[in-house]
Parts: sequence; structure tokens; C-alpha cells
Amino acid sequence: MRTVSAYAATAPDAPLEKTTIERRDLGPLDVLIEIKFSGICHSDIHTARNEWGGTRYPIVPGHEITGIVAEVGSDVTRHEVGDRVGVGCFVDSCGNCDPCAAGEEQYCANRVTATYNSKGRDGEVTQGGYSTHIVVTEGFVLAIPDGLELDVATPLLCAGITLFSPLRHWNAGPGTKVAIVGMGGLGHVGVKIAHAMGAEVTVLSHSLAKREDGLRFGADDYRATSDPAVFKELRSRFDLILNTVSVDLDMDAYLGMLALDGTLVLLGLPEKPLSVRAFSLAGNRRSLAGSNVGGIRETQEMLDFCAEHGIAAEIELIAADRINEAYERVLRSDVRYRFVIDAGTF
Amino acid sequence: MRTVSAYAATAPDAPLEKTTIERRDLGPLDVLIEIKFSGICHSDIHTARNEWGGTRYPIVPGHEITGIVAEVGSDVTRHEVGDRVGVGCFVDSCGNCDPCAAGEEQYCANRVTATYNSKGRDGEVTQGGYSTHIVVTEGFVLAIPDGLELDVATPLLCAGITLFSPLRHWNAGPGTKVAIVGMGGLGHVGVKIAHAMGAEVTVLSHSLAKREDGLRFGADDYRATSDPAVFKELRSRFDLILNTVSVDLDMDAYLGMLALDGTLVLLGLPEKPLSVRAFSLAGNRRSLAGSNVGGIRETQEMLDFCAEHGIAAEIELIAADRINEAYERVLRSDVRYRFVIDAGTF
Repeated sequence: MRTVSAYAATAPDAPLEKTTIERRDLGPLDVLIEIKFSGICHSDIHTARNEWGGTRYPIVPGHEITGIVAEVGSDVTRHEVGDRVGVGCFVDSCGNCDPCAAGEEQYCANRVTATYNSKGRDGEVTQGGYSTHIVVTEGFVLAIPDGLELDVATPLLCAGITLFSPLRHWNAGPGTKVAIVGMGGLGHVGVKIAHAMGAEVTVLSHSLAKREDGLRFGADDYRATSDPAVFKELRSRFDLILNTVSVDLDMDAYLGMLALDGTLVLLGLPEKPLSVRAFSLAGNRRSLAGSNVGGIRETQEMLDFCAEHGIAAEIELIAADRINEAYERVLRSDVRYRFVIDAGTF
Repeated sequence: MRTVSAYAATAPDAPLEKTTIERRDLGPLDVLIEIKFSGICHSDIHTARNEWGGTRYPIVPGHEITGIVAEVGSDVTRHEVGDRVGVGCFVDSCGNCDPCAAGEEQYCANRVTATYNSKGRDGEVTQGGYSTHIVVTEGFVLAIPDGLELDVATPLLCAGITLFSPLRHWNAGPGTKVAIVGMGGLGHVGVKIAHAMGAEVTVLSHSLAKREDGLRFGADDYRATSDPAVFKELRSRFDLILNTVSVDLDMDAYLGMLALDGTLVLLGLPEKPLSVRAFSLAGNRRSLAGSNVGGIRETQEMLDFCAEHGIAAEIELIAADRINEAYERVLRSDVRYRFVIDAGTF
């Protein structure tokens, strides 16, 4: 066992504080990573504050992790000491079910092992990336390609793949019209990736405040959904709408903007059930779908794609002692566009 | 103009009564059909009783129509006098929009002209198949293949295509697991078609009352949804669930039975909005979709497929003076499985 520095929440209403945690000894297939950067995702806040229930305290959040391989187990072949690597939202899966066989470990029928607040195969609760080191089995460690700086690559491990996977799955590309709802940590990466895939990209944001950024990131159009006329003007327009926001939206209004065979994909997870009229789906044979990050193979594909197309997240780098302040700013949507913690300050 | 016999409702609470209506003179592309049979669809009742709003009285329902070509316009090339033909849920569309160009006239961006209670291009309100004759432009008249008797082919024009289209669109076939929710007029045809396509078919019905029929029609399994254990046993099982019932179902429970990338398609149109949890969709990347009959090309394909596979609807043939009684029996689900009216009695 190895004792390492970390930041943890000890209760739903407690601020995150500096502490130490244990990392397991390396098994034959394990990789020890010296963490360099750790991103802040809204899910971290939900879990630290037990807003989804089930949080096991103390909890170290963090599932956007980049760093350098510091040591490898005896049978590791995929990574070497000194490699630049990343870890995303999960660190293990059963490997035997249909989704695992399909390379879609995130949908593991026997429950994927999440990077934090999840019981690993050893029975221990996993602890995330707000820490100096982490031990992960090699099959769940991604290679960060040359040309992608570690700090700006960090949010790709969750925000990037959350957008990349549905864009690929629903065939975004030349000739398709894609709308991204929300221009936050998820949305801004989605605009860049969808544009690089060749799709025509529209941002649907509450206001036009981030319009210039959106157009710079590759959006062809940018509309404020506070204007009800937008829903009429864009009626039956999009092949794919990716909804990155968790607030309660008028689903029927958004579905109405889907063209024939269009799909609206939920990427945020609102706690309240959605209200959907069957008529909104029957017209244009529309679909309402959900998507949850992406598999390991696809995450590597996403990282390679981003390196190739010069895509990185827009980040604000902070020291660990500013995590609690950053959480408040995330809740106010006051970040352009993702906080990344310098792991040297844990 | 031609005066023909028909059965019409004159008010939401009035029984259908014998009357006469006018059919237009044949234009160059029109076909005059001597109707032989007319099916009773639940939509007929909704419209006759103004339950969806917008009914223009007097209204002649009926959008499952078969008969014989009696006369053709000067430029008609697709049909000849004496041909066995059918008409389904719509009789015209704009022909210019993206859906029409894709052969999906039912999703016409400029509103398809429904077979009844719809304004045609001539400004007249369309009147349906509870009548001795109808005039339809040739592009919306289907050929009934040899080997399909007219009476049992009649319900295919709505119930058949309503199931065939989503089965094709979502790739039902060998190796796929399909569930049909509801064993009524729609569901029983769906079982036959899905089985003929090679899919593994499960019927999900409230009770086991029609189990023997279901297995005879080709179902591999038949489950009663009144038993809550069924939802657990069939968790993550189906690639495609076609919901033919309009009553308020627990959508999250049904979505939970979808496998990775599975789709639940709504074919009935409940008036109340559905309640759906985002978590139900995000797991297994599930989709909730709607589908509305099928295009003309696909309807012909469906008729040819049914003829080839010996598929016909199970019907109860009635005289026109029993329409009102039949409506009450449809509402009680007391029909195995579709009423068809003998047009010789209009």
C-alpha cells in the first residue's frame, strides 16, 4: 500500500479538505500514474454533496485525470514508465457481458467500476483523481498522443468523450446538422469536435453571451433559446441535438427542431423525470436517447482525433486549495470552460 | 361529381348513420375505386367522437380500404380498371419536401392529406372508406398482390404498415429480439410480420388470455405484464420494443427491458405526456422513438411481403349497420382482432 496526498469531502455539506489516502500495491496488470492534472466535472460536485445519493465518505472525486506512468506491474504491456497517460470515468468492468464484448464497457451489465465512489473487484471503494497518484489496471489507461498538452487534454477524458461518442454513434459529419444545447464544459468541446467531424454546428444557449467564443470554436450558428421564435425558425432542422444541460427543458419544443429521423440525446442527467408527448416523437419519426461517456477503445479514438485536429479543452488552471471556490463557480456557470487542478498542489 | 352511399358521424356523441356524400370527378391522374372492404381502426373512433379535436362534421371515417378499380383518369398508368387495390391512411402529400423526396410521405413537411378529416389540395375535406366508392390520385393507390384476399388484406393498410415500417427501420430480423406490447389489431399483425422477418418475438400483454393465439401467430414467448417479475426477468433483453397500446404505461419499466442500443417505439398516441427518467435512457444508450405508419413505397413492400409470407389480418367481417356496436367492442378490446366492414352493405 502507498499513502498519497488527496483532497476529499467528508460529508455532504463539508468543503473538500487535504488528506491522505491509500493506493493499492501494483498487481501484475496495474499501472501507477503520477497525476499531473485533474479536471472538475459537475458530477464531482453531485457526488461530493451526495446529490445523487449513495456517496461513501470520505470521497475523493475526479474522473478527468492525466499524468505520467511511474511504475508498471510485471505483466503490463500497453504502457511504459514515462508514458503520458489518462484515466476517465471508469477503471474496470466485468469484461464478459455483451456491452463489454462490444467495447462499450461504460454499459457493463455487471456495473462498470467508476473511478470514484464505486466498489472495485477487490471490494475497496474507488477514490478519484484529486490526488497525487492513482493505480489503474492497464486496460483502462489511455495514451495521450503527442501534440496534446496534458493540461488541456484533461477534460477530454470525460467532457470530450461524452460528446465524441454520440457524435460518432449518430453519424455526425459532412451533410449533417448538429445542435449543441449548452456552451459549458461539455458543450464547448462538443462544438469543436462536431465542427472537426464536418457537421454544420449550431449552438443553442440560453443567451448570446458566449456567442463569439462559440463561433471561434467552430459553430456555424449560435442562437439564444430565451427567444421563443428560435424554436419556430429552427423547426424540423437538426439531424442530431446533443443536450448537455441538466436543467428542466421543454422537451417537446426541442424535439420539434429535429428533422426526419433526427435524435435528441440527453447527456446531462436531470433528477426530475422528463415530460414528453408521444406526438412530438411520432412526427418525423424522432428519437429521444441517452448516452453515457464512451468505451475505452472509443476514448482512445477520441484522443487521437483531438490530437490530429488540434482540439483541446479551454481550461482555467487552479491550485487544489481553490477547489471549493471552483465548485461554487461551476454552479454559477462562471468558468470558461473547465477547471483543471494542478496535481502538484494536492 | 358522383353521389355515393356512406356511413357518417354528424356530431361527437351521435352514432354513425347511413348517408350520401359526393366524390369528385376524375382528374387525369385519379382512380375511382369501388370499395369492397373497409377496416375499423381505433383512430376512426377518436375522430368520429372528436377526441383529438378538429373533427369536421359530418365525417366519414375509414383508412383501411380495399376494392376494385372502376374507372381511371386519362393519364393514369399505374392501375387499370379491374385491378385489386388498396388505400391507407393518406391520399396525397406535397411531393416536394425532404420527407416526400425520401418516400416518407407520412412525414410530409407540408402536412400529408389524410384519408379523412383533412383538407385536400382542392380545399375539400376528405372523406374516408366507410363508403361504396372513393377517388384517389394514382400515386397513393396500392396494388393488392395476388394471393392476398381483399378482406383480410384490408387491415394491413393501416395496422400492417404501422408495424412493418418500424420493424424494417430498426432492422428486425434474424438475431434480433423484438417485443410487441399489446395483442390487439396492431399487435397481432406485428407478431406475424416480425416472426416472418426472422426475429425472436415476445408478446407483452396485460394477461395471458390471448397466449395461444400469440404463439400460433409466431411468438416465441408470451408474458403477462401484470406480473412485476416479468420486468426483472426480461431486463436488458430486447433490441426493439414496439408499443401498440395507448394507455399510460410505466415507460421506465419498459425501457429497462431494452438491451444495448435498443429502441422502444411508440405506435399508439396517448394523450397525456409520458414521464421518462433520463437515467432510463442513459443506461444501455437506449432510445425512445415514435413512428407513424409508412410511406407509399414501403406500404407496397409490406403488402408484397405479406403476400409472399402468407400473412393476413385476423378479422371479424360485419355489415355496416353494426359499426356502432363494433366501436363499443373495440373500446372493450372485444375483437379478435380487427373489424372489417363489408362495403356491399353501405
